[in-house]
Amino acid sequence: METRRPVSPGAEEILGLYFPVLDHGFVALVDYMGSDECIERAARVSYGHGTRKKSLTRGLLRYLRRHLHTTPSEMVEFKFHCSMPMFVARQWIRHRSASVNEYSGRYSLMPMLFYTPDEAQLQTQSKVNNQGRSGEPVSPAAYQEALRRWNEIRQSSSSAYDWMTGENMARELARIDLPLSTYTQWYWKIDLHNLLHFLKLRVDSHAQWEIQEYGRVMAGMLKRVAPLSYEAWIDYDVCGARVSRMELDALSRLVAVESDGLRAKPGAELDASALGELGLAQRELRELYAKLSSRASVPDFELDLSKATTPEAFAERYAGAVPKGDKPPPE
Amino acid sequence: METRRPVSPGAEEILGLYFPVLDHGFVALVDYMGSDECIERAARVSYGHGTRKKSLTRGLLRYLRRHLHTTPSEMVEFKFHCSMPMFVARQWIRHRSASVNEYSGRYSLMPMLFYTPDEAQLQTQSKVNNQGRSGEPVSPAAYQEALRRWNEIRQSSSSAYDWMTGENMARELARIDLPLSTYTQWYWKIDLHNLLHFLKLRVDSHAQWEIQEYGRVMAGMLKRVAPLSYEAWIDYDVCGARVSRMELDALSRLVAVESDGLRAKPGAELDASALGELGLAQRELRELYAKLSSRASVPDFELDLSKATTPEAFAERYAGAVPKGDKPPPE
Amino acid sequence: METRRPVSPGAEEILGLYFPVLDHGFVALVDYMGSDECIERAARVSYGHGTRKKSLTRGLLRYLRRHLHTTPSEMVEFKFHCSMPMFVARQWIRHRSASVNEYSGRYSLMPMLFYTPDEAQLQTQSKVNNQGRSGEPVSPAAYQEALRRWNEIRQSSSSAYDWMTGENMARELARIDLPLSTYTQWYWKIDLHNLLHFLKLRVDSHAQWEIQEYGRVMAGMLKRVAPLSYEAWIDYDVCGARVSRMELDALSRLVAVESDGLRAKPGAELDASALGELGLAQRELRELYAKLSSRASVPDFELDLSKATTPEAFAERYAGAVPKGDKPPPE
Amino acid sequence: METRRPVSPGAEEILGLYFPVLDHGFVALVDYMGSDECIERAARVSYGHGTRKKSLTRGLLRYLRRHLHTTPSEMVEFKFHCSMPMFVARQWIRHRSASVNEYSGRYSLMPMLFYTPDEAQLQTQSKVNNQGRSGEPVSPAAYQEALRRWNEIRQSSSSAYDWMTGENMARELARIDLPLSTYTQWYWKIDLHNLLHFLKLRVDSHAQWEIQEYGRVMAGMLKRVAPLSYEAWIDYDVCGARVSRMELDALSRLVAVESDGLRAKPGAELDASALGELGLAQRELRELYAKLSSRASVPDFELDLSKATTPEAFAERYAGAVPKGDKPPPE
Repeated sequence: METRRPVSPGAEEILGLYFPVLDHGFVALVDYMGSDECIERAARVSYGHGTRKKSLTRGLLRYLRRHLHTTPSEMVEFKFHCSMPMFVARQWIRHRSASVNEYSGRYSLMPMLFYTPDEAQLQTQSKVNNQGRSGEPVSPAAYQEALRRWNEIRQSSSSAYDWMTGENMARELARIDLPLSTYTQWYWKIDLHNLLHFLKLRVDSHAQWEIQEYGRVMAGMLKRVAPLSYEAWIDYDVCGARVSRMELDALSRLVAVESDGLRAKPGAELDASALGELGLAQRELRELYAKLSSRASVPDFELDLSKATTPEAFAERYAGAVPKGDKPPPE
Repeated sequence: METRRPVSPGAEEILGLYFPVLDHGFVALVDYMGSDECIERAARVSYGHGTRKKSLTRGLLRYLRRHLHTTPSEMVEFKFHCSMPMFVARQWIRHRSASVNEYSGRYSLMPMLFYTPDEAQLQTQSKVNNQGRSGEPVSPAAYQEALRRWNEIRQSSSSAYDWMTGENMARELARIDLPLSTYTQWYWKIDLHNLLHFLKLRVDSHAQWEIQEYGRVMAGMLKRVAPLSYEAWIDYDVCGARVSRMELDALSRLVAVESDGLRAKPGAELDASALGELGLAQRELRELYAKLSSRASVPDFELDLSKATTPEAFAERYAGAVPKGDKPPPE
Repeated sequence: METRRPVSPGAEEILGLYFPVLDHGFVALVDYMGSDECIERAARVSYGHGTRKKSLTRGLLRYLRRHLHTTPSEMVEFKFHCSMPMFVARQWIRHRSASVNEYSGRYSLMPMLFYTPDEAQLQTQSKVNNQGRSGEPVSPAAYQEALRRWNEIRQSSSSAYDWMTGENMARELARIDLPLSTYTQWYWKIDLHNLLHFLKLRVDSHAQWEIQEYGRVMAGMLKRVAPLSYEAWIDYDVCGARVSRMELDALSRLVAVESDGLRAKPGAELDASALGELGLAQRELRELYAKLSSRASVPDFELDLSKATTPEAFAERYAGAVPKGDKPPPE
Repeated sequence: METRRPVSPGAEEILGLYFPVLDHGFVALVDYMGSDECIERAARVSYGHGTRKKSLTRGLLRYLRRHLHTTPSEMVEFKFHCSMPMFVARQWIRHRSASVNEYSGRYSLMPMLFYTPDEAQLQTQSKVNNQGRSGEPVSPAAYQEALRRWNEIRQSSSSAYDWMTGENMARELARIDLPLSTYTQWYWKIDLHNLLHFLKLRVDSHAQWEIQEYGRVMAGMLKRVAPLSYEAWIDYDVCGARVSRMELDALSRLVAVESDGLRAKPGAELDASALGELGLAQRELRELYAKLSSRASVPDFELDLSKATTPEAFAERYAGAVPKGDKPPPE
């Protein structure tokens, strides 16, 4: 179709492509508004200028991002169609600055699709991250036992759902014993500013691995739609850090600012006790050490286009997993 | 304690009382800010006046409500502690203009408490309200079979959860096959304007009965905290209606405005076809008839204080339902 | 340009056209996302269906609007470029569910453009609407005197601004004595749901006439972008009304619901005192009479395309009104 | 009055005290909900625990702040009554996560009170901060000339306003030539999380000095209401900084993490060109140097209680500045 709107060529390439996530889920970019250039245009209205040299767009976007001048990035919108297990949906929906239309289990029959973790992902509770997994998978035998139990639960759940809806019991009640691993789906619309915040939290290693998987695919989409914003987000948010008054104090005792650069102060050192005297708690010391440890490689959320499939492929899989023909929507 | 803040006497009476909802859930008002008088005070700033005769508060609040001048009612806040099944929580959280802190199944062990519908509530799918129940309970035998299946699912679910957390598997995965009927809990803070909107939708007969149960208790709390706002909400929102251009057109053909009142126009009538010509669709006719049918009695959400219990009573029940002792929180 | 996004043909026609409002202001639709069909698509995800017959789109959109199922309409976005006097901007910005980038008087030089009311608009204070104008213009002599005073103020203001910025005084202070009639401009982005709410309030006769002028042009744009949503908004919002419990009570005493239509009850009447007994206050009687009075003609916010001009025309006028060349924006 | 709500002793001390800001403005804390302990309680619900040793509250609040776990701090509310010049109000209102009721110039007569900058504040445009003032006051003669012009403008403005309202012209129009320096007032309610964000931006040296003055008084109020949150905000936000991927890279080349502390790497240095190769732009170099320069003393926003006055004192001053007796508000 023809349009007179600003177009993001990278967005057009992936529009409507359905990217699989986890065993039955997906994310697709189904609509968008704006591009990197539109952020610049919105920022420039404050400066009272119309257009500028394109070569300066990158510098301006990085400046805005660095200094948290975020309102211009609210001018770009993304609309996604996504399917995810309900325990993931419950984390996702905590981000309030988005618009959502979710599949209704009161109105429609739920597809009997459940998320099953891979063997590598069924890990023990982390001792460090109090809410996450440790990186250590459980034994193969334990995984087999988990699989057996998941199957048993899902069998009874599906069977009960099938029976109850077959008996014409209210769907809003038939579904109450479906497990949290059941897939749901929604349209989800958000502006770039809020998307960057969401993705920062969701590609983070402290997020549950399953939602990270969604975050990574969506970050790949972001990279296509607004490549300069993506790059700035990687440099200032994902791979940047916040440092405290006490940490800046510590660093300024170790590093001298010269007229033309930075220099390690000869002989300067701060042991744990000296750092503690600056006001840093034990836990903050570990956090500071981590910030200064040699950097991991910069993450690259490049999409693998070869994995993309069509909406029809998913629609068919989902329709096939519904107990029986859904009833028609209201007039 | 002493305070110099505005106090709502009705709120003080119920503060910290835990009201049971459904079989294991509860709602408690744990903090509040403001009262009916504070809404008036905020409204008066627009009028450039300080105080006024108290007797006029009611008239002003009703005027504001009737004309949707809602910003003054944003000045009053409610903080609730609530526990509800997850399928209820998922409907509740769709209201984005609130602050939430929820119990974390990634961090903490979940109590094995599940919602079981009463026999009277397990009904067939409604033919009228496409997403609700019909009012017709299923047969006693069907209810028994449903109970048997719920028990079976919850048995396997609890047993798997117990086993997985006992094996020290990550809690964020151990929980994924808990059913949607599992209870969770949260603190939920919202201003009066948004609470009225939430409650309007949630005490409505189209909402799922289980969340209506929460709505009714919270409406009872509202009645205590801000009685004038509650009364206006009943009169203009809960028992009021929206009428369309076409409906007003129809009504003005049937009712004459006189110098001192209203009069039915002699002989005036509009059959379905005449109403259709005014632009009303079939479905709208039924809606219009319902609006004009003789009013049901005005609902009264008066709290039954004798049902209230203590936070400790619930804390004990919940702690007793957790697989084993929870681990301590982080420093 | 080519796009694979949903396109609204009516939106494409007016995209980038600058419509004059008041003496120096404008509104332009500069970007959009979605269309009436996208609202239907978002709503259908709840029903578990993909596509449907186009002929049913209108019925569904009207159903959603009538029953305040507003989330699907959040899926459509509008981005406007607007210029308005600051007293209008101050009313406009009270709508918080929008994204804004405004011209900065701290950074940039303000154009010396001020709003001058027409003779017809300079009216006396209304006795009915406590915050508006009466409909009665002041005398020609009074208007001339007002003009003289406005000119005097604007002369001193402009001259002071010119002098202070010429002396290189901080712009953030040089501007503090510009009058509220000075024009500012911004990009403003909002979703359809919130736009309908904004426009409902701003095309209303209780809004200040000057912001109504903006509302009417934007309503005309809405009519082009999403004609079915516009029509439903006219029928259910702009020309509809809210009726209270007491009003429904009164109406049901005057109108009988028959098996096939409505009939005025013979001899039924309610004088002011009877209406008062139903709980209606004096002021509410007047409001009820107004709702039932014969309808004014349905407003039509059709745009006059012949009035549209180009961004360049306005850019030139604004640049010409700036004291002297603006300094370049930051790197 | 007696209350069973959580009480903040520091808040009670200052409740209802009116603190002057600028020449005619004020800020007063008029209501609040919650305290530092309430934030902990909300956070603990996630951890499935009731109460904990008080000594750990500080550590938990600092942990939450450091890691941007901000939802528990949404549980605390502040309600302020404030008066400020309109150009300040226009900056303030840009923060959308607050509730506002403003004095209405359509309904009420405006007090003829205008902000006049001190001689020290009338400075030249900054060359560094593109939107601010330089720190260099203008000459005494220039200040006198500015004063003369301000007086002239305000004289004509007041006189026109007086005349127009005296002629019973609509107030919504009579006010359009009041200068942006005219004082307005509002009730403003916000939760702690959003207040910290607002104050961070508004006590910052890049904010206009006049709004900084408001920020500093409100920060002093925050210190009283929630002292632990205030301290964490100073350490992690106000005196902390964000560092980029490139900056962390640079720092890790200069500072070694040892088993028990940090050590400056002997001989390590990075000149501007080496820093540039790491990806830091010219402007970012200056920003990095500033972060590492020896810290300014930690700001202390302690309130000066001796400056506080009463609401009546301000009410009298404002009433005295209104052209003539305001008309009564509507029923």
